[in-house]
Amino acid sequence: MKHKTILENAIKAMRARTYYAQYPEAPSGKVYGETANDDAKKRFETLSNSTFNQLLQEGASGTVGEERSPYGIPLSIQYPAFSTETLIKNAQNAQKQWANASYEKRADILIETLEQMKNVFFDIAYATMHTTGQAFMMSFQASGPHAADRALEAIAMGYEELSRYPVTTVRWDKPLGKVNAVLDKRFYVVPRGIGLVIGCSTFPVWNTVPGVYANLITGNPTIVKPHPKAILPIAIWVAKMQEVLKNAGFDPHIIQLAPDSTQNPITKQLAEHPAVKLIDFTGSSHFGNYIESIPNKTTFTEKSGVNSVIIDSFIDVDNALENLAFSVSLYSGQMCTAPQNFFIPKNGVNTNIGHLSFEEVVQKFADKVKNLAQNPKMGAGVLGAIQSEDTYQRIQNTKNQGYKIILEPQPIQNPEFPNSRTSSPLLIQVNAADYEKYAQELFGPIAFIIQTENTQESISLAKKLVEDKGGLTLSIYTSNAETKENMLQELLPVSVAIAFNLSGPTWINQSAGFSDFHGTGGNKAGNAAYTTPEFIVKRFTVVGVREQA
Amino acid sequence: MKHKTILENAIKAMRARTYYAQYPEAPSGKVYGETANDDAKKRFETLSNSTFNQLLQEGASGTVGEERSPYGIPLSIQYPAFSTETLIKNAQNAQKQWANASYEKRADILIETLEQMKNVFFDIAYATMHTTGQAFMMSFQASGPHAADRALEAIAMGYEELSRYPVTTVRWDKPLGKVNAVLDKRFYVVPRGIGLVIGCSTFPVWNTVPGVYANLITGNPTIVKPHPKAILPIAIWVAKMQEVLKNAGFDPHIIQLAPDSTQNPITKQLAEHPAVKLIDFTGSSHFGNYIESIPNKTTFTEKSGVNSVIIDSFIDVDNALENLAFSVSLYSGQMCTAPQNFFIPKNGVNTNIGHLSFEEVVQKFADKVKNLAQNPKMGAGVLGAIQSEDTYQRIQNTKNQGYKIILEPQPIQNPEFPNSRTSSPLLIQVNAADYEKYAQELFGPIAFIIQTENTQESISLAKKLVEDKGGLTLSIYTSNAETKENMLQELLPVSVAIAFNLSGPTWINQSAGFSDFHGTGGNKAGNAAYTTPEFIVKRFTVVGVREQA
Repeated sequence: MKHKTILENAIKAMRARTYYAQYPEAPSGKVYGETANDDAKKRFETLSNSTFNQLLQEGASGTVGEERSPYGIPLSIQYPAFSTETLIKNAQNAQKQWANASYEKRADILIETLEQMKNVFFDIAYATMHTTGQAFMMSFQASGPHAADRALEAIAMGYEELSRYPVTTVRWDKPLGKVNAVLDKRFYVVPRGIGLVIGCSTFPVWNTVPGVYANLITGNPTIVKPHPKAILPIAIWVAKMQEVLKNAGFDPHIIQLAPDSTQNPITKQLAEHPAVKLIDFTGSSHFGNYIESIPNKTTFTEKSGVNSVIIDSFIDVDNALENLAFSVSLYSGQMCTAPQNFFIPKNGVNTNIGHLSFEEVVQKFADKVKNLAQNPKMGAGVLGAIQSEDTYQRIQNTKNQGYKIILEPQPIQNPEFPNSRTSSPLLIQVNAADYEKYAQELFGPIAFIIQTENTQESISLAKKLVEDKGGLTLSIYTSNAETKENMLQELLPVSVAIAFNLSGPTWINQSAGFSDFHGTGGNKAGNAAYTTPEFIVKRFTVVGVREQA
Repeated sequence: MKHKTILENAIKAMRARTYYAQYPEAPSGKVYGETANDDAKKRFETLSNSTFNQLLQEGASGTVGEERSPYGIPLSIQYPAFSTETLIKNAQNAQKQWANASYEKRADILIETLEQMKNVFFDIAYATMHTTGQAFMMSFQASGPHAADRALEAIAMGYEELSRYPVTTVRWDKPLGKVNAVLDKRFYVVPRGIGLVIGCSTFPVWNTVPGVYANLITGNPTIVKPHPKAILPIAIWVAKMQEVLKNAGFDPHIIQLAPDSTQNPITKQLAEHPAVKLIDFTGSSHFGNYIESIPNKTTFTEKSGVNSVIIDSFIDVDNALENLAFSVSLYSGQMCTAPQNFFIPKNGVNTNIGHLSFEEVVQKFADKVKNLAQNPKMGAGVLGAIQSEDTYQRIQNTKNQGYKIILEPQPIQNPEFPNSRTSSPLLIQVNAADYEKYAQELFGPIAFIIQTENTQESISLAKKLVEDKGGLTLSIYTSNAETKENMLQELLPVSVAIAFNLSGPTWINQSAGFSDFHGTGGNKAGNAAYTTPEFIVKRFTVVGVREQA
């Protein structure tokens, strides 16, 4: 194996769960080549008004394309379109070759796709920025190195699980007194079938590649159905994978892209096709529940949820509230892991600078959110732009519903892209009793400050929210060790990732490859977690073949 | 750990998949105590007309009991009955203690239950014999040592999967240039909730304990809902588990028995209860499909299927047909793994004694089936008795449907139990075109000899049967290496366990613990396989807890 070391390091890292990264997250010329950024930027600019021609896929019929940059620049790229039947047939033709390759071979080729992906990390970054509205830094990190690390995780977990079974014939020799019963046995890993990975508009690469690589390491050819508004980043990724597969002597249709349009979507057709056995999905709960309900499919979903912050007391109030202000602002709250609901007791909280009233905590928080958004050196780089007009309208509609407004949403100055669609966070204050209001997911830069009777009520409500609506993250601030332990005992059973007292340069929104699981698969926010063994082992079966010796 | 060696040997065996058994399968006085058999027999005889009082379960309301021995002896045992709410409440009260025990502790206690189960293997054997109709030898082996080995498998796989995560705090230290981001992380295994294991009437222990031990090693308290006609064997098992749990200082309600009656079944109530998160099921496809369709449950099913034998050519025709005759006769075909459909080409087959015509093969096979059934030393000991009146009626009904009958069913002589409900196999000949007839599962001693055009048609039909109806086993006879390889390539994708040329004292019906997987989880016969990692890892989630360092 060419990439044995990379693989072994990844397996070791996932066991240890300490800090590890295979692909450096800094968009640095020293790491990725001094001209990499400029070259990619030029390439990106030439894509406008063209048809994307890097895919090695046969059978196109017409083109589709409706992406628009949230930064207000033109972006009129067309993509080849394919019928469901063509995509399925292409996948079926490629199926046997890929299933019959050894898992070592598959791992090697898949890691090679990541190694070569480094050459287009900047291309993918610009593509991500101008489809999702993420700022450049996040676009680079999330769709480049962080995604590649998550992909490597899936390869490593797959390799580990597949190497569990003997690859050569095993002799089974059972003593029966005078004679022995003797059989020769082989164990075959049988992939489930064709995989479909349905992408979302905000993280078109990061949320897509775990399922893609989990499918591929276990031998299932895969079709990526990107969101019609965010095709380019994953199109570049898929094209590079196809190139690597072809150069390795494999059918490039082992991985395919299935661009479609909002007018003529093909997602349901693909999902319901009998040959599609595995579906990975990121998106709304409504569509995710439909995906989970299709009979005879194995599904891996990340749906919507409502994430909470419980504030009991602060070890370091200013650093903590700066951390939280950053969390609600990062990519304008368009992360499935972003906090929405802040539970604060009505009698205020103890802090390192003395007791603060409820109003003082809220004001301090609002000031920090405002300062970040208005900081000319940070605002645009942290908040980015609003991906969809729907999200933008949601901010305006929520603002006008008569809530007590703590902080009005404002446009973010972005001198480089003056036509960007932007908004600073809208902060609203409600009471604990307004459950129906804050129990809905309001995707985007909208946060509720919820006044509770006390911390125990905050815990109960946060717990109920996870049970009723699901959640990906739960952030807790307390300086009391006993309270912390009680919270753990009460909240662990609802299966949501928890963080205590984050106050440095790590935010609740982020999950680190090789260390943090993304999602738990244990609540209504979805049934998948990157990357647990379950995310891998449901993608294949094992068939024993016995023979009289 | 007291039982570290047993555990480590089991883990090693499952990796190697060579022959291994922890619990000797011979009902031998030397192994299990010279008086064990007699003592158990006496204890069994005193149970008649009594109420089973060994359970350590609180909250009984009334009794149920309707078991009848297929061997025609009286068996009027009553069992305490429990309401669904009582069972759920008992389980919930026990939940936290068990979840908070370390997985090493859980493994140790669960292995201790198996070690102590040895003392009641003979009790369970008599209980199994007189509820299922299995002959004594199978009753002992299947419900005793083989079941205990499968239980140990689940413990071992669970231990391996749970030891994947760090048990102490991990420091995550990420360099960010001038500063580092430092977090302390812990990983908590969060059990899914309460487990329900629904047993069947023919293998009330063997098919039940894998789910029970998989649930328990991963921290989920479990309720066993036995078939109303086969309660006693698993009641003894559960009672012994409760005793061991109690002696270890744990709440015995971590495992509970939920006896009910055919008149007032509580299975659906239990299955649909929101606190029940895991359901293991063995039984009909009809009920199994319902179980799989209940929202928000993780299910492990073994439903019905149709098992085929493809006869292309014989290396050793007499030994092979004796093996097959034994397979259709063993426990009168009442095994989910028993072959039903025998595909034989119309032009006959090549064998070690020359070419045999279709008719000659069929006649040879029928003779061997008949000789086995009529052999006074073997008949009753191999065929046992017919568990249910329904199965017995099915034989008579099928016989009278105008099929070409190759072998008439006959009663089996059983001097010890002259009132046994017995039947030798009914062999029927049909054509390949009669697909609708042989594509139904006819549970019991009924087999179809299907005349095909050639081996290729046999393969296609056997494959189609697995795709349409599911199957647990596929037995193939061929002396041609190339044919064998082609069959493998064609049949592996439908994910059914395959055996070639079985002709010694190993039968397609049997799967060996630690070596063979039972089921694949990859076709309509069920979604579970004993014991793959998937059978384990779906029973818990992992929650990461981060804290600012």
